[in-house]
Amino acid sequence: MAKKQLRLGAIIHGVGGNVGGWRHPDAITDASVNFGFYKQQAQKAEQGKFDFVFIADGLYITEKSIPHFLNRFEPVTILSALGAVTSNIGLVGTLSTSYSEPFTVSRQFASLDHISGGRAGWNVVTSPLEGSAKNYSRTSHPTHAERYRIAEEYLEVARGLWDSWEDDAFVRDKASGVFFDPSKMHRLNHEGEHFSVQGPLNIARSKQGHPVVFQAGSSEAGRNLAAKSADAVFTHYDTVEEGAAFVQDVKQRAAAYGRSPDEILILPGIGTIIGRTQEEAEQKYEQLTELVTIDKALDYLGRFFEHFDFSQFPLDEPFPELGDLGSNSFQSGTDKIKREAKELGLTLRQVALRSATPKPRYIGTPETVADLIQADFEAGAGDGFIIHATTPTGLDEFVDQVIPILQERGIFRTEYESDTLRGNLGLAIPENRYTAARKVQVHG
Amino acid sequence: MAKKQLRLGAIIHGVGGNVGGWRHPDAITDASVNFGFYKQQAQKAEQGKFDFVFIADGLYITEKSIPHFLNRFEPVTILSALGAVTSNIGLVGTLSTSYSEPFTVSRQFASLDHISGGRAGWNVVTSPLEGSAKNYSRTSHPTHAERYRIAEEYLEVARGLWDSWEDDAFVRDKASGVFFDPSKMHRLNHEGEHFSVQGPLNIARSKQGHPVVFQAGSSEAGRNLAAKSADAVFTHYDTVEEGAAFVQDVKQRAAAYGRSPDEILILPGIGTIIGRTQEEAEQKYEQLTELVTIDKALDYLGRFFEHFDFSQFPLDEPFPELGDLGSNSFQSGTDKIKREAKELGLTLRQVALRSATPKPRYIGTPETVADLIQADFEAGAGDGFIIHATTPTGLDEFVDQVIPILQERGIFRTEYESDTLRGNLGLAIPENRYTAARKVQVHG
Repeated sequence: MAKKQLRLGAIIHGVGGNVGGWRHPDAITDASVNFGFYKQQAQKAEQGKFDFVFIADGLYITEKSIPHFLNRFEPVTILSALGAVTSNIGLVGTLSTSYSEPFTVSRQFASLDHISGGRAGWNVVTSPLEGSAKNYSRTSHPTHAERYRIAEEYLEVARGLWDSWEDDAFVRDKASGVFFDPSKMHRLNHEGEHFSVQGPLNIARSKQGHPVVFQAGSSEAGRNLAAKSADAVFTHYDTVEEGAAFVQDVKQRAAAYGRSPDEILILPGIGTIIGRTQEEAEQKYEQLTELVTIDKALDYLGRFFEHFDFSQFPLDEPFPELGDLGSNSFQSGTDKIKREAKELGLTLRQVALRSATPKPRYIGTPETVADLIQADFEAGAGDGFIIHATTPTGLDEFVDQVIPILQERGIFRTEYESDTLRGNLGLAIPENRYTAARKVQVHG
Repeated sequence: MAKKQLRLGAIIHGVGGNVGGWRHPDAITDASVNFGFYKQQAQKAEQGKFDFVFIADGLYITEKSIPHFLNRFEPVTILSALGAVTSNIGLVGTLSTSYSEPFTVSRQFASLDHISGGRAGWNVVTSPLEGSAKNYSRTSHPTHAERYRIAEEYLEVARGLWDSWEDDAFVRDKASGVFFDPSKMHRLNHEGEHFSVQGPLNIARSKQGHPVVFQAGSSEAGRNLAAKSADAVFTHYDTVEEGAAFVQDVKQRAAAYGRSPDEILILPGIGTIIGRTQEEAEQKYEQLTELVTIDKALDYLGRFFEHFDFSQFPLDEPFPELGDLGSNSFQSGTDKIKREAKELGLTLRQVALRSATPKPRYIGTPETVADLIQADFEAGAGDGFIIHATTPTGLDEFVDQVIPILQERGIFRTEYESDTLRGNLGLAIPENRYTAARKVQVHG
């Protein structure tokens, strides 16, 4: 019997996910707005048969934001451009349900799905940063709970709009002059707490039916939203036990919504550093940490706590008591920082440096990294992983050195199974709700 | 002295701008969502040295909308994809200020400008269709006057956000660890009637400084908005006198805002049909009219009048009295229909058929079409034109047969002057407002 197959995504992360990455000797310092760089990374990931590339996002910056966040491509535009220069790899990007309109966003992802021939994915987030409200003419940022209520309704609207047209609605018969069958065009007529949207969407259902929906929050509300509505979950963990517990938890919640565990993929993000020897890999990590100063590390930590100014506290005393601070922004992340600081008795300096340049679990030779991935995968800590290659050339190294090992072990594809993202991820194409209802009527 | 140069845009219009175009024997019936078609058209226009391609848009459809509107690409996504497969041609698309957020839209066009190396253009519209409100959780569609007040403020915000970063703000010095100069990052802190937006935008100024801003309304409010804020105006006219008067009028209004007439380009849309002989061209037009039935023509006409049902009136009696109907949607267009119906004593049937398949003024052999364009251009009826090739192969014919004549006459380029849209259109790069203020301070 064929082995269970690993799913892999690749984060394209411009000048890097930490404060100092852009200073690396190999870094292209304008990478976050350099289309040539994004194109090369996406094509390299496609050469490595990755399921998808992943573009993260945010809606608020200050002087203290990390370099990559200050000046980067907007996801919908860069994914569309990448769609034109790739042919099999999925195109997944973050877009917030707290500061956008479901008609526009459903339409943009449907359009991306048409452009790319069925490779679009949308990572639903609710915008953790309070400041986002200031860029969007709002008097206040919705609470964590409220943001998730909005997101849940928003996703219902999006899925409804994606079903506006049945798959065979467009007849296009030149001789008779019938362009479409009006009985297969549907108004959603959604009237909810946060949205009222009539429809229909002005674009047909695409090859995937619905673009793949990712969800990235790991809080209680985030897990429930994922379990109810998402096709895939982007999460993080520190130990394999923690990962396996998360997988179990979300799949059980999905079951409670009447879904099969296979209908929802759990894809933790993992940092990787590859060296010719373990020692070289460890040196590469040391080199990264040296690029970060304590001031920048404090700024970075502050972002998770509503841009809190940590420089007012002594560096080498225990991490300060912060009460509820951070719980309305990055809830699960800030809870974890506070808990660990207490449990491990960490100082502010230690917390800041750990946060700014966390040591990746997946560090070593290509063999070692492949072993770690396989072990976590086989321990049930994920259906696959989203690779964040921590150094500028890390994705190229992963494709050239780690992928062949995973392929040889029979746990990763050597050719794409499909030209759609759903096809490669093993996710079914959702049936149009009206087509399904029609069948029930006929057979019932 | 070199002759004044014509500017040319090409509308890519999927299955066509009228009701029956998709039935043409040469039509690709899924063209509106066929990336291969859009790519071919954009590359053909680039081969013809067009200044830009143009993607129109709308936010509300009903069963009676024309086929192209029912199912088409969303502009931001398709333009981004086209940016990846072209290298010199401008990428201009419609986006409404009535149903979107300036932070997101400024950012998407800035991102498109970075992706394409300085080729982005935004056609600002205010959404004529009342029904749009129903897709955007609004209780009512803003009035015509209100929509233009919103658009004016929106554009101020967008231009402010595009100046968030001075051109030399990103230092990127690896040795010193200075990624950017905080004194060159600026918050807009806009607080207005409709929007409050803090900034800064999370993307640097692009090669064009500001993407090129088009404006498409021809009403009084539309002309004023264009005169005050637009780089280019997309308009329509029926006679060369009307065109020249419009050009004069808008350039005078621009002068009243302290702008030079060269800072704003007037680009009327023109329909073209090309044949080997005049007779063949006329036959091509007849063929197009035969693809439209009177029922579809009435539906098409109704769309301009808030989806009014004209089938309740007798076809062969004078066009009915409609009062104010239509004035809150397509104000200048519906005024003109009513005026002409009265002046020419047209029946409902005549008005509907004229509206559904208007005969293009630019019809004939390549020589004739080139003559007409040159004559209108030299009569001051536009700084150039946006070509709507009325038949499926019309753009290819225009590039192969008309462009060489215009080039031979010395009024159209044989090579791109620039790799940016501003460069090709002869529009200056707007100076960053903060850089300008700094200079005044230094020299003042």
